[in-house]
Amino acid sequence: MTDRKKTTIVLFSGDYDKVMAAYIIANGAAAYDHEVTIFHTFWGLNTLRKDEPIKVEKTFIEKLFGRMMPRGVNKMGLSKMNYAGFGPTMIKDIMKKHNVLPLPELIDMAKEQDVKLVACQMTVDLLGLKPEEIMDGVEYAGVAAYLADASEGNVNLFI
Amino acid sequence: MTDRKKTTIVLFSGDYDKVMAAYIIANGAAAYDHEVTIFHTFWGLNTLRKDEPIKVEKTFIEKLFGRMMPRGVNKMGLSKMNYAGFGPTMIKDIMKKHNVLPLPELIDMAKEQDVKLVACQMTVDLLGLKPEEIMDGVEYAGVAAYLADASEGNVNLFI
Amino acid sequence: MTDRKKTTIVLFSGDYDKVMAAYIIANGAAAYDHEVTIFHTFWGLNTLRKDEPIKVEKTFIEKLFGRMMPRGVNKMGLSKMNYAGFGPTMIKDIMKKHNVLPLPELIDMAKEQDVKLVACQMTVDLLGLKPEEIMDGVEYAGVAAYLADASEGNVNLFI
Repeated sequence: MTDRKKTTIVLFSGDYDKVMAAYIIANGAAAYDHEVTIFHTFWGLNTLRKDEPIKVEKTFIEKLFGRMMPRGVNKMGLSKMNYAGFGPTMIKDIMKKHNVLPLPELIDMAKEQDVKLVACQMTVDLLGLKPEEIMDGVEYAGVAAYLADASEGNVNLFI
Repeated sequence: MTDRKKTTIVLFSGDYDKVMAAYIIANGAAAYDHEVTIFHTFWGLNTLRKDEPIKVEKTFIEKLFGRMMPRGVNKMGLSKMNYAGFGPTMIKDIMKKHNVLPLPELIDMAKEQDVKLVACQMTVDLLGLKPEEIMDGVEYAGVAAYLADASEGNVNLFI
Repeated sequence: MTDRKKTTIVLFSGDYDKVMAAYIIANGAAAYDHEVTIFHTFWGLNTLRKDEPIKVEKTFIEKLFGRMMPRGVNKMGLSKMNYAGFGPTMIKDIMKKHNVLPLPELIDMAKEQDVKLVACQMTVDLLGLKPEEIMDGVEYAGVAAYLADASEGNVNLFI
């Protein structure tokens, strides 16, 4: 039994801005010594995809999904004002000017701070993602593991 | 006073994928003996609509809303990659292949597990929905009832 | 140390319907004597914008963002069924018929009930918003202040 506070985030969204919000909160909570878990499900799983194409055996539908979904955060759009990809470019440019860490570095920082990154096994299967396509250091689990964490959590968010 | 843990979900969204996430978490929590409430509001109310057209007296605007909104989960689109309705068809097909329960059965299971399904009275009125159009076994309540549940909740999510 | 319950909302969204849900929950919680904080970030910041144009020095990109984003809630669209601005007009019309308070009055009520309205300093800077453009009575803070509140919170939501 530990006295550390717990933060859990279900990251359902695959929009650059929402993923950024999730990782900023996760890193903040880890800095305040919370035990933090991000449970990536549905489009949020794309956060964990490697950015280069990986050769894996896939069915036709899995290939289709694989092509349509962004490979990693740098290919993601914004939830608002995306303007065919111009929005994310603008946001990244502004972030740089304001010395805000870009999302890939926020993810690295989360790993360094021992934020637990979990991929929802069921949606990994549904979207046809293969372990080879997912970045290292990610755990695979289901709703039971999420609930075990969340039911002890002080801050539980669905993003 | 009970020692059972509590999970509450505000289901605001009416996207097939988000409703599915909500019902998977709700069923998981109920299986772990949580008291679970799903408070359906705004577009999330369409989850509770019967899928056949029901004859009811409506104003012009209520009729308009009634036609534009999906009758039940099988008519819902995805929050991403909807592709004019092709996305949901693909997802349902893949779910079947992976033996994932389709959403109508997840809703039935939630009822069997005594998940409390609540319709937000205020948004029912705003969207012009009539009790005859809503599935049986649903309670009607407002923000006060939600807060009474949520303020005792271990896991509270807004989806 | 106080025994009052706490509700915190991260308001990320800038859609009329989601902002309305956030402020209805916030006002309800305040009425039940919760200490309530709404932490406005990203598009949710537009909730706090004054509705008239304010003369301020801006870079080209800041001007662009400033023009594209809605000035206050009355300029916001819906997350669903927006229909090029016709949806919000319909919803406001129906709200009036059902004696539901319009959003600007829900915001005033929140202030009167001492709901703490916070603007996320980092995203204020990113979106190029200036203090002169933001309504009075708003605090500026970061993720640390949010987490301090949320980790004591009974109801924590991300909207």
